[in-house]
Amino acid sequence: MPYPDELRLEVEHYLEGLRFADEPLVAGLEEAMRYSLLAGGKRIRPVLTLATGRALGRDPRHLLPLAAAIELIHTYSLIHDDLPAMDDDDLRRGRPTNHRVHGEGVAILAGDGLYAEAFRLVLTRQDGDPAGLLAAVAELATATGVSGMVGGQYLDVTGRTAPLRRLHELKTGRLIAASVVCVLLLEGAGEAATLGFRRFADELGVLFQIVDDILDVTGTDADLGKPRGSDERHGRRTYVSEYGLEGAKELAADSHAEARAHLRAAAGSGSATELEQITDFIYTRTS
Amino acid sequence: MPYPDELRLEVEHYLEGLRFADEPLVAGLEEAMRYSLLAGGKRIRPVLTLATGRALGRDPRHLLPLAAAIELIHTYSLIHDDLPAMDDDDLRRGRPTNHRVHGEGVAILAGDGLYAEAFRLVLTRQDGDPAGLLAAVAELATATGVSGMVGGQYLDVTGRTAPLRRLHELKTGRLIAASVVCVLLLEGAGEAATLGFRRFADELGVLFQIVDDILDVTGTDADLGKPRGSDERHGRRTYVSEYGLEGAKELAADSHAEARAHLRAAAGSGSATELEQITDFIYTRTS
Repeated sequence: MPYPDELRLEVEHYLEGLRFADEPLVAGLEEAMRYSLLAGGKRIRPVLTLATGRALGRDPRHLLPLAAAIELIHTYSLIHDDLPAMDDDDLRRGRPTNHRVHGEGVAILAGDGLYAEAFRLVLTRQDGDPAGLLAAVAELATATGVSGMVGGQYLDVTGRTAPLRRLHELKTGRLIAASVVCVLLLEGAGEAATLGFRRFADELGVLFQIVDDILDVTGTDADLGKPRGSDERHGRRTYVSEYGLEGAKELAADSHAEARAHLRAAAGSGSATELEQITDFIYTRTS
Repeated sequence: MPYPDELRLEVEHYLEGLRFADEPLVAGLEEAMRYSLLAGGKRIRPVLTLATGRALGRDPRHLLPLAAAIELIHTYSLIHDDLPAMDDDDLRRGRPTNHRVHGEGVAILAGDGLYAEAFRLVLTRQDGDPAGLLAAVAELATATGVSGMVGGQYLDVTGRTAPLRRLHELKTGRLIAASVVCVLLLEGAGEAATLGFRRFADELGVLFQIVDDILDVTGTDADLGKPRGSDERHGRRTYVSEYGLEGAKELAADSHAEARAHLRAAAGSGSATELEQITDFIYTRTS
């Protein structure tokens, strides 16, 4: 399945160039942050950001600070999720998790630091009309706060009996949606256009999670970069545990079709080739 | 010593009214956040914010969202600092620390949530010119990032042999300074005025830390809300361990005089009564 690798390489290159420590004494903290930030991957969230820019007729490179900030936030959430007090995972993308290498205290601070530096990055380096920039950063804070990513992780850790779709909407869906919606806010797009893209992005978050749950059962350890079956070992409710493997596959197919339909409606006569490619990739990926 | 209690009560009232969970399922996370947020204290940082507003001739209440956001950030830093992987403290302000009550996983997320909600609060509720607001939030992110609060905590946790003044400048000084400087940025004050207040605020951060180190030796357990001598037990370098108790007291007196001089220069003909009161309070406090 084609993936917009040209955009992924732009993101990768930009991330590699980022430095956070103005102060040499904290170089070790920067190293711990970069250990997790530069672990590769498809960079789905920032690539979504750049692809949305292109669908709106903008030069994607213009959006690199915003896109990179979202990847910093995603990385921070992975580091904290892996901690012993949370999921207690030893492997991530085939490498020891951050706290296994740098210790728990530094891992917590590496996550905290990535979140702070994400805001600093977008607030000091992202061009745009001040009102649009404020709206985009507010969306980022909301998507990652108590009624977003952090709240979803809370539901996951405490095993609250939240509806499955709601848990994932908070834990992963909100940030995936923000990767798209922030661009419309930054560019000052109208309410109708923003709502259209938000519908697409929300469905994309759902699709992402259903496929994630399926892969945890059907994927190979090598593809996943961690042992298969971690959801079951953690006693997690997933789309597979809830609907069976075949049921989850049907849900994924429906969700994919719905996301594509929302995208067609949102993009109108504009070209959204890269967003279509990402949507198809999220559906058919093997890792 | 008089303290601007009228401003403190404004802060306290505003903090009590804050709700973070749009989603009832995450009410338990909000509870953990409020446990630490509403533990009382002098609220030095947000009171500094309101007092700076008054020194600039503004209605302090106009600045409550920004002031409260700074207190949320301060609370987040305390929760993470107290964690077993960091300082491993059991008591804070005379009560069990957050992770002792809510568990380590929820405590980490309560900190993460407070930090996110701080940004959301100031970005969605603070009135002001968009460009000024952007500058103020960027200052907050910088003051709390790798070259600020988080970097300072990294130096503290890893025991890097940083110059004492530099460690504290990052760990506590930057956020105290931001409590003042953010107001000048928000109000679009000129560079000269901002620099003048920054000099005052930087010195105030130094004074705060010297007195903190002295109190850890001379304070009573009841006043401190935790056992005296925790610095020595943690093997921390402090102004007292470095200069002796009398030496530290002299440094405090010098720093207090310097802060007052900077304040006089910055405030010019304006009235800065509350800022003077806070400066004197920080010097003479017993807890």
